[in-house]
Amino acid sequence: MKEVTGGVCAVRGVRAYGIKEGKNGLAVITGIGSSASAGVFTRNKIIAAPLVVTREHLKSQQLSAIIANSGCANAFTGEQGLSDAAGMAGIAADRLGVPVGLIGVASTGVIGVSLDMGWIKDRIDSVIAGLSDTAEGSTAAARSIMTTDTRPKEFAIELVSGVRIGGIAKGSGMIFPDMATMLAFIYTDADVPYEMLNSCLKRAVDRSFNMIVVDGDTSTSDMVLLTATAEMGIKMKTPDEPGLSEPEFQEGLDCVCIELAKMIARDGEGAEKFIEVRVTDAKTDGDAKLAAKAIVRSPLVKTAVHGEDPNWGRVIAAAGYSGADLDPDRISLAITGVTVVDRGGIVDDAVVDMSGTDIEIAVDLGLGACEAVAWGCDLTAGYVRINADYTS
Amino acid sequence: MKEVTGGVCAVRGVRAYGIKEGKNGLAVITGIGSSASAGVFTRNKIIAAPLVVTREHLKSQQLSAIIANSGCANAFTGEQGLSDAAGMAGIAADRLGVPVGLIGVASTGVIGVSLDMGWIKDRIDSVIAGLSDTAEGSTAAARSIMTTDTRPKEFAIELVSGVRIGGIAKGSGMIFPDMATMLAFIYTDADVPYEMLNSCLKRAVDRSFNMIVVDGDTSTSDMVLLTATAEMGIKMKTPDEPGLSEPEFQEGLDCVCIELAKMIARDGEGAEKFIEVRVTDAKTDGDAKLAAKAIVRSPLVKTAVHGEDPNWGRVIAAAGYSGADLDPDRISLAITGVTVVDRGGIVDDAVVDMSGTDIEIAVDLGLGACEAVAWGCDLTAGYVRINADYTS
Repeated sequence: MKEVTGGVCAVRGVRAYGIKEGKNGLAVITGIGSSASAGVFTRNKIIAAPLVVTREHLKSQQLSAIIANSGCANAFTGEQGLSDAAGMAGIAADRLGVPVGLIGVASTGVIGVSLDMGWIKDRIDSVIAGLSDTAEGSTAAARSIMTTDTRPKEFAIELVSGVRIGGIAKGSGMIFPDMATMLAFIYTDADVPYEMLNSCLKRAVDRSFNMIVVDGDTSTSDMVLLTATAEMGIKMKTPDEPGLSEPEFQEGLDCVCIELAKMIARDGEGAEKFIEVRVTDAKTDGDAKLAAKAIVRSPLVKTAVHGEDPNWGRVIAAAGYSGADLDPDRISLAITGVTVVDRGGIVDDAVVDMSGTDIEIAVDLGLGACEAVAWGCDLTAGYVRINADYTS
Repeated sequence: MKEVTGGVCAVRGVRAYGIKEGKNGLAVITGIGSSASAGVFTRNKIIAAPLVVTREHLKSQQLSAIIANSGCANAFTGEQGLSDAAGMAGIAADRLGVPVGLIGVASTGVIGVSLDMGWIKDRIDSVIAGLSDTAEGSTAAARSIMTTDTRPKEFAIELVSGVRIGGIAKGSGMIFPDMATMLAFIYTDADVPYEMLNSCLKRAVDRSFNMIVVDGDTSTSDMVLLTATAEMGIKMKTPDEPGLSEPEFQEGLDCVCIELAKMIARDGEGAEKFIEVRVTDAKTDGDAKLAAKAIVRSPLVKTAVHGEDPNWGRVIAAAGYSGADLDPDRISLAITGVTVVDRGGIVDDAVVDMSGTDIEIAVDLGLGACEAVAWGCDLTAGYVRINADYTS
């Protein structure tokens, strides 16, 4: 497995493009010959209109294209919102000449405001005209879905078998001015059947996008879509035939999802430092996840990292209230590689240098063999400024 | 029921005093003739030594006195910590001439550092000499347990029956430099049997201290102690005899706990505004609590309040991910009394003035008859400064 350039367009059969005008953007991604598509959606009970439409379209287990806009989330917009989201799909279907039921729709931006359908109609032709299978196409699409993001997010890999997996994502904690949204559109040129695509995506999302925390707020619009174009001409391995094995595909998909998720955490609103929390030797996988996410979410830990203070008490307290099983006499803790607590004992002469931008917190619970990793960022006055100093 | 002055010393039979020298403080509270005592402790799995000792002593269902220090939490201090906490109880028991098993012990401050027992021994006599049943005694005790608190917290009421309930508390989000701690010591002069005292306290804490959020971090040292001195000479009502009814006592205890809890939320680190979130018409009590706490905990809501932005989308999104049952078409929302969402419809011409220091957010879920109230504060650059700009 190796990293390749080109983002989502590194995948054979994928074309992408997007435009950005001030806060508003429009992107289209197409995957010719798409064999199967799967999606994972927000668990928020308030669900934005595009998610309702895309979830319905995914019942066909196939998406030929995705249309996405930034600047307006089309969330909490009632019947009008559903009609507009379906309309966006219709516009894309019409111009691309594919059935409307094969279009995925995503929106990110202000909530409670209806889409400006005229703006989209006026620009769809130029976006479609720009569709390209080059790295520039991927970057243009990634840039057009940015909101408070400070940089476009794209990543691609090539597996040993030659299969490629690539994607773009956006997300920065919350979107100017209203709402956190995490979107990721991932493609592979392998020919992966729907059921496998779906189960691999759920596992990968659990290990990546579900393990990042910027502020603990769950958006109404979070969505990850994965489409297999089958353009590589490689089938899944069978007992009789060589091909792509499920573990190889899962490993590659995990890698792409984790890299995109880390880009989102690193670009958290106001973030100056990136935090990786690794919990090992937990009794269960669930315990490891609970502890890792509680630590990376803790405002105390986030402000301590910001202040470059190796404040291990805050880390241990967060593990303590996470719900994970733990024993104070067995816990060990290292910050950026320096052990500060060793099996419950405080290491008095530990010297921790937290001046770097990447801070690693490693917690060994000493109770089992399960582990989890979570990613986040520090909490800064910049975060408060971005989210408080705007008045609607 | 009416508010009375005097804090914890408003209660007959209670004496209190405390001293503060820089970051370190020492307080003692005594309740003569204490008939019964009950306690509620942190749910953090890392539990500070004083809580272990006090929980053990509470098996007698009675505390004659409480000794508390600030500046050192005596948390994550191993065997030495347990021995020191027992030692603190022993010092108080010795000077007061009561069995050590009747002493409650509390500590708040830095974690991972052992108590300076010499400092405590050198000052215990002057604290005990200062014990007083006046308002000044209560304030001195409340002041001596402050850490990042900006003001002492005390409150007392008198029920129609003449029974008094009063208490002191501390808590401000987290303690310089390490750890959030919420302590409250409450007394009543009614003669309430242990079982009733205990069940009333659990209910009151659920409606008060468990409904405040400053940063979502749960301390290793949170503790609420309630003692009945029985000095008022009033017994609980029976079918044959007049006296104090349980509902009257519960109402009074709820009031004292809620007022102390609100003082903590109002004094949250860096706080400039106080937030009250009232969720009504929820399907269950649990749903109402989940929604109210998610809203008051949300960094998005907290920063919006700070920015005086009536950003209802963030409130609704927080309710949406809280886990509470809800229906977007039934939800109504008012901010400082102005309806901004009415049964799912956006009120376009709503004008909300958030320039005041007390911001009320009322969410009507329209699904049932249950309600809950939670309290918190805004998220400011001051919070980040307090918690980041200290380097240990």
